Amino acid sequence: MEKISALQKARFSYQPKLPEAVKGNVADIVVKLGNPTESVSDQEALKALLKGTYGMPVASFEKGTNAKANDKINVGVILSGGQAPGGHNVIAGLFDGVKNGNKESKLYGFLGGPSGIIEGEYVEITSELIDSYRNTGGFDIIGSGRTKLETNEQFDKSLEVCKKLGITAVVIIGGDDSNTNAALMAEYYKSKGEAIQVIGCPKTIDGDLKNEHIETSFGFDTATKVYSELIGNIERDANSAKKYYHFIKLMGRSASHICLECALQTQPNWAIISEEVEKEQKTLTQVVEEIVNVVVKRAEKGDNFGVILVPEGLIEFIPEMKVLIAELNDLLAKKADEFATVAAADQADWIAKNLTAASSSAFTSLPAAIKAQLCMDRDPHGNVQVSRIETEKLLIEMVGARLDVLKAEGKYKGKFAGLNHFFGYEGRCAAPSNFDADYCYSLGYVAFLLIASGLTGYMSSVKNLAKPATEWVPGGIPTSMMFNMEQRHGEKKPVIRKALVELEGAPYKEYVKYRNEWAENTSYLFPGAIQYYGPAEVCDAPTKTLALESK
Amino acid sequence: MEKISALQKARFSYQPKLPEAVKGNVADIVVKLGNPTESVSDQEALKALLKGTYGMPVASFEKGTNAKANDKINVGVILSGGQAPGGHNVIAGLFDGVKNGNKESKLYGFLGGPSGIIEGEYVEITSELIDSYRNTGGFDIIGSGRTKLETNEQFDKSLEVCKKLGITAVVIIGGDDSNTNAALMAEYYKSKGEAIQVIGCPKTIDGDLKNEHIETSFGFDTATKVYSELIGNIERDANSAKKYYHFIKLMGRSASHICLECALQTQPNWAIISEEVEKEQKTLTQVVEEIVNVVVKRAEKGDNFGVILVPEGLIEFIPEMKVLIAELNDLLAKKADEFATVAAADQADWIAKNLTAASSSAFTSLPAAIKAQLCMDRDPHGNVQVSRIETEKLLIEMVGARLDVLKAEGKYKGKFAGLNHFFGYEGRCAAPSNFDADYCYSLGYVAFLLIASGLTGYMSSVKNLAKPATEWVPGGIPTSMMFNMEQRHGEKKPVIRKALVELEGAPYKEYVKYRNEWAENTSYLFPGAIQYYGPAEVCDAPTKTLALESK
Repeated sequence: MEKISALQKARFSYQPKLPEAVKGNVADIVVKLGNPTESVSDQEALKALLKGTYGMPVASFEKGTNAKANDKINVGVILSGGQAPGGHNVIAGLFDGVKNGNKESKLYGFLGGPSGIIEGEYVEITSELIDSYRNTGGFDIIGSGRTKLETNEQFDKSLEVCKKLGITAVVIIGGDDSNTNAALMAEYYKSKGEAIQVIGCPKTIDGDLKNEHIETSFGFDTATKVYSELIGNIERDANSAKKYYHFIKLMGRSASHICLECALQTQPNWAIISEEVEKEQKTLTQVVEEIVNVVVKRAEKGDNFGVILVPEGLIEFIPEMKVLIAELNDLLAKKADEFATVAAADQADWIAKNLTAASSSAFTSLPAAIKAQLCMDRDPHGNVQVSRIETEKLLIEMVGARLDVLKAEGKYKGKFAGLNHFFGYEGRCAAPSNFDADYCYSLGYVAFLLIASGLTGYMSSVKNLAKPATEWVPGGIPTSMMFNMEQRHGEKKPVIRKALVELEGAPYKEYVKYRNEWAENTSYLFPGAIQYYGPAEVCDAPTKTLALESK
Repeated sequence: MEKISALQKARFSYQPKLPEAVKGNVADIVVKLGNPTESVSDQEALKALLKGTYGMPVASFEKGTNAKANDKINVGVILSGGQAPGGHNVIAGLFDGVKNGNKESKLYGFLGGPSGIIEGEYVEITSELIDSYRNTGGFDIIGSGRTKLETNEQFDKSLEVCKKLGITAVVIIGGDDSNTNAALMAEYYKSKGEAIQVIGCPKTIDGDLKNEHIETSFGFDTATKVYSELIGNIERDANSAKKYYHFIKLMGRSASHICLECALQTQPNWAIISEEVEKEQKTLTQVVEEIVNVVVKRAEKGDNFGVILVPEGLIEFIPEMKVLIAELNDLLAKKADEFATVAAADQADWIAKNLTAASSSAFTSLPAAIKAQLCMDRDPHGNVQVSRIETEKLLIEMVGARLDVLKAEGKYKGKFAGLNHFFGYEGRCAAPSNFDADYCYSLGYVAFLLIASGLTGYMSSVKNLAKPATEWVPGGIPTSMMFNMEQRHGEKKPVIRKALVELEGAPYKEYVKYRNEWAENTSYLFPGAIQYYGPAEVCDAPTKTLALESK
């Protein structure tokens, strides 16, 4: 029986590339601090809140002597939230940085996500352990978890665990929420005079943790390449069989970055961008009509096949649906007793009667199966389970129904058969692309350099990513400068602003420039499987999003 | 806007490997014929039926002089049925063989599958055309179709089209049905004294067209590697998040070869093999119980996650379900008028009352959603649409329900959350692996050598496939020797026997040897994406099925 696959074995020996600026002995690298910074907004409120960590300067590195880098220290690391390709390489880069500083230094991995540091569940990351995880996908080396590390009580417990292990620095690998909390933890320790540094690393396949200083979150490159491989394969199938419309839903609960990137990589017949739907206040009927238009135009050319990309979070970006869901939750909470007496067959009618006119009309337009789901499939708090709505099936049904009407009116003569797909879990734990392998390793390595520079409340940053790795620019960004204040559970809280698709941004504009051509013609691109060996243009190309944003 | 992806461009220059025995000038290769053959069974009936093509010898090749290979000829080629990776390379190999014989010779591609030759829809395959499809996935160069080429009338029409184009040989690339029909077409032309040769090529991702002489059908290698990439990624996700059971349905309506091969490549916690279910006359409840046992054992170790593989065709291999579906079709045909008067809410009860006791009990055991589907979702002939039954969801629901019972009895203390996936279209049009690129190219090239040897009613054959391509053994197999007589639409007909998973075969035995260990422990293998460049053990390994069957 095999223990590891041939590719895993081959990839163990891949040496990720580091930026030129941080190669060599870590004691020969010193931090260079810039001017004080300001947060993106709410400066006064944040300044008052983050007394210890507000306004810190951006950090970069230069040659010099940093004796502190050779101190013997213990570092802890946490994987937080959903998996993203490359997490193991962040730990590998951190490990190699720590050991480059001092062979006696130790790296501890907290198990099962943030709960590990609270409950003191950990493992020492040894050379043997990390070597069997280099350049692999997954977070299985120490596991991940969704516990939020946010209360002072949790910070105190974590402190205790760290003190027991002699840990003076913690690296938290996570998305916007986890990095927000890492910065608050740093602030808490600093304000209490505790010598524990906290450094964050930007992780999420969703691509919604990015800004001026973080060009992309890790995992986005690999995940979108896996999805694009599959979309390309399905496009080729559609173009060969010429009889199906494939509706492909792509993971990403809020931002549509994944959908947009995959569209740029595969040139499908249509891709819905949630941010556009919200901005233009589109109704579900309009979203459906846009797809219907594509189908009708293609049918006129004799093409009764196509590929449509759908972002997972779509429903919540359609204003009327958002209102409908809120009203439904409200109605069924208020009139729960009355609703309970309504016969199953009459529930939809009862609901339609009890909603506002606008929501009633939105509700009535939905297919029967979705209506039933909205009536019955509710979470323990009685709320509609939006994430359970099978948007891709809903669209197939509504597009089909609309085409039937057009056919009866003689306005459409084609054939329509829809097939649905959902890609998410297929890409979160793929073996990282060369880009993510290098980027993650660099992020981890730079995290150690920030620790060795005595910083806390920073995120590891590697910029200039559209260029070859040797030209990448490593640094540290005070997390507080990405903060704004947002309403959370009835309170104003400091949070990193989530990066949605910019309708003024280059990637979206590129898509809009070509989408009508892609809709009518068949311009599919077939990216194929991620390659680790072979020509650089095949193996090392960054995402289209990154390339376009860097122009 | 890009026209082709970086990988496509890079792959155009890949030169597929040919077996040593057929390298060089095609005029320096002669056919060597063996002894007369017999069909696998029904010899007398087949001999009487196939007067012109029964008993022909197996063909192999040796060095010699074959002046006929330099004749100027026109050849036609057809892609038949579902897509499989490598179809374009069969055409490329055939093209290169034809042109190696005589630069003036022409290759015509019939469009949209077998209907192309009947209706005279074709395109000339030029050097420019084929060069833009070398080593790519899909059948889009000429399209495919599911028209069955089987009646004398169709053969006559095809003959007319061929005569008009000066075509004297047709290569049909297809599965067991298409190759059966290709042989019958060869017999028809031969018996009528028409000088049109017909040669078949073994295609199907399902892997169920194989026997002593055809070691594997093309496309199986690539498709199973794509599915295994995805299964491995999901396994890694399951092992990182540690909270979901992923039920993954895999394409393959009858045989479970895909499911078995993917299990060997990824070592999941359980894989259902339809042939075993049928052989051991398992009930749906038993199939569910086997999965429940895996879940319970893993929960005892604290592991509440896993990956279960489900073959698409399962339902039809469960004897009680087969009977139930037959009874349902019969019942709803006979009592259609009465059933139409039954209220929707009472349909399930009505059906349960009108079935035999055994089928009624099988029906009653099904989840409500599946019952509703069986009542309502029927094809235009009134039959249950078995392929529409979402087996993976059905299993999740039934496993969950059974675990609830065990939990109430105190026999299970874990948590169970199921997620469903279906992989099929993702793999049928992937760019062919090096193996399929080489194998398909060789099949096409050998098809020309069979034509140049004056043969008809043969399939192109390349054996010794578990060895490096240079050691492969090219030849031709008279299709009639794979025939047996089977009942089709009330008539005994000659057909190639479909190759199901052999319960005495090495791949199944290998799986059985390890499955309990894989069930209890977590022994996942992560094959990763198909690689075209890099170490040979990563890029050129054949399937586990082929390797085990060749031992």
